Amino acid sequence: MERMVAIYRVRSDAASIEARARAIALEQSVELPPEAIFSEAVLRDVAGEVQAIGELGPGLFEVRIGLAAATAGCDAGQLLNMLFGNTSLQDDVTLWDAEFPEAMAANFGGPNYGISGLRKICGAGNRALTCAAVKPQGLPPAELGALAGRLAAGGIDFIKDDHGLADQGYSRFAERVRACAGAVCHASDDTGLLTSYVPNISGDLNLAAAQIGLAMEEGIEAVMAEPMILGLSNFNRLVRDFPGMAFFAHPAMGGAARIAPPLLLGKLFRMFGADATIFPNYGGRFSYSPETCKAIADEARRPWQPLKRTMPCPAGGMPLERVPGILDFYGPETMLLIGGSLLAAGDRLTAEAVALQARVVRHFEGAGNA
Amino acid sequence: MERMVAIYRVRSDAASIEARARAIALEQSVELPPEAIFSEAVLRDVAGEVQAIGELGPGLFEVRIGLAAATAGCDAGQLLNMLFGNTSLQDDVTLWDAEFPEAMAANFGGPNYGISGLRKICGAGNRALTCAAVKPQGLPPAELGALAGRLAAGGIDFIKDDHGLADQGYSRFAERVRACAGAVCHASDDTGLLTSYVPNISGDLNLAAAQIGLAMEEGIEAVMAEPMILGLSNFNRLVRDFPGMAFFAHPAMGGAARIAPPLLLGKLFRMFGADATIFPNYGGRFSYSPETCKAIADEARRPWQPLKRTMPCPAGGMPLERVPGILDFYGPETMLLIGGSLLAAGDRLTAEAVALQARVVRHFEGAGNA
Repeated sequence: MERMVAIYRVRSDAASIEARARAIALEQSVELPPEAIFSEAVLRDVAGEVQAIGELGPGLFEVRIGLAAATAGCDAGQLLNMLFGNTSLQDDVTLWDAEFPEAMAANFGGPNYGISGLRKICGAGNRALTCAAVKPQGLPPAELGALAGRLAAGGIDFIKDDHGLADQGYSRFAERVRACAGAVCHASDDTGLLTSYVPNISGDLNLAAAQIGLAMEEGIEAVMAEPMILGLSNFNRLVRDFPGMAFFAHPAMGGAARIAPPLLLGKLFRMFGADATIFPNYGGRFSYSPETCKAIADEARRPWQPLKRTMPCPAGGMPLERVPGILDFYGPETMLLIGGSLLAAGDRLTAEAVALQARVVRHFEGAGNA
Repeated sequence: MERMVAIYRVRSDAASIEARARAIALEQSVELPPEAIFSEAVLRDVAGEVQAIGELGPGLFEVRIGLAAATAGCDAGQLLNMLFGNTSLQDDVTLWDAEFPEAMAANFGGPNYGISGLRKICGAGNRALTCAAVKPQGLPPAELGALAGRLAAGGIDFIKDDHGLADQGYSRFAERVRACAGAVCHASDDTGLLTSYVPNISGDLNLAAAQIGLAMEEGIEAVMAEPMILGLSNFNRLVRDFPGMAFFAHPAMGGAARIAPPLLLGKLFRMFGADATIFPNYGGRFSYSPETCKAIADEARRPWQPLKRTMPCPAGGMPLERVPGILDFYGPETMLLIGGSLLAAGDRLTAEAVALQARVVRHFEGAGNA
């Protein structure tokens, strides 16, 4: 059977690492010791195989394990289960990376729009995109709509819900989406720019699908979801069931998983269908390093036939004065998500949004477009 | 608004902990600094509030934060999002515990069967239950069915799929369930005991629901699921949509989440509907301590009106000779999951299953029943 490769980083002493690697290989495949397996075919084709062990430093090893791709099949949740399900319970191991047969990536299908598709939605050329957030939760739909309208009046490309906005009793999804989509549409008519509203979807698969249906009735082309909360299988299902919709992936519950962020937020979210992947930017209120951020962006954007490329979307506590440096770091194929720094402007919200948008557009002038 | 309480353990120096606690309270609610919130009602009712900070030891603090219960509503995934969504990205924080208004727990509904319901399914009195596993993955349905039949011939109470058994192309769910359910039914007719087969369900919500439908056609009363892979909202949805089905919760992907296992595998899985909760037993190939295992069992079994009680199901690398000690540790309200230790018996599989079952039944003789 064809193999995928799971790459783990394992804390171990040198004397134990070979046995530890074999134990992981069995745990993530047959979950039995070889002496309890009475099928030659299973031992040969399905039991995980240790392909390489490399010492990275004192007490730290990288272990490559080949796993039968057919054990994951075409189910995103089952793929995660096979890569890390039980081993996630053993805290000496981090899932560092994974390599997949090309047919597997093609089966999951990747993004519907990709980087160039997102640019078309907002009519942007070869520049970074902008994204702002509507919050705080607790506001009634009309006030969230008013905020969305004021951000749209500033010409921001995408205006997304805060990831805490669900379908709460005090502020229902349907009312919020009507209010925000209406306000953004109205403001866009004034500016002549193609600002899009991106509602957050939540709940179980069928509730989330119904929310996408409501969004489509409002002419919405992009939604945000939290794949680690929705469940990866459900996220991938929605992406495939709604090929006309772009999906922003939010990392909630994704950082605690002891899975390297470039693999989870870059490679896996892309494979399962994220058009944009939001992640905590370096230097903000979260703790990712510049190297991790760069690696996430690389995984999202690198050529990986036949998948479209995913827009990296650094976020989190990003003051406006840091924008030029961040744009230099990521280049034009990125989308800046600025939330609280804009909303703190109060009465000057639209003016600050205009200033942000102008700063981003001008940063790439001469680079082909605005 | 009514508050739930999230309890975090935070690594911090004493000088910073107050500011850090306030930052977590904002992150898990409004996700904005107070100066960017222009609604008195949101500041008063929705912004998280630090209720208490206690020093546990040098550099380690326990922080209690009140969060508006309405921000989670009746959606299990959204509840996890509000408790830990963004803060999961910050590795100085563990979600340690949570307290919920009783109406919230009642809304999620808890287990369909609970401990006494599971005992009725297998006709057991006041004793611990037994559970064995069908594996390895890679075997064709007929061979998995034969294994299930040989375990059932030994009188084991529940025979569950390995959590790696999904709907793989080489061994489809429908065929496996027919083979295993048929073999277990046949063996039970011989023994006169009420052995149940517990298939593993997987995929997105609708695929999982369809698998439950197939299982019901075979007369099956219990299924296993991985709530952290399926997504908590989808798990809770299935429990409520299939009130005649018992649900075994498997902890795959649940250990890496930096959420204390008693909260996740005990309290939360119970609230969302687990009739049995499987967790890595102390002293096995996983790394939970006896204290953690005891705490999981306590959360699963303690009185919590109006929820039924959840059967703790310790598992993982448990040799037969440890059984009496484990039974003394957990008492009669537990279900022992013995996988590889039985399957390694080869030709003596049924004989070993008989011995295990007898050991468990006799351990509690005189305690009211067998």
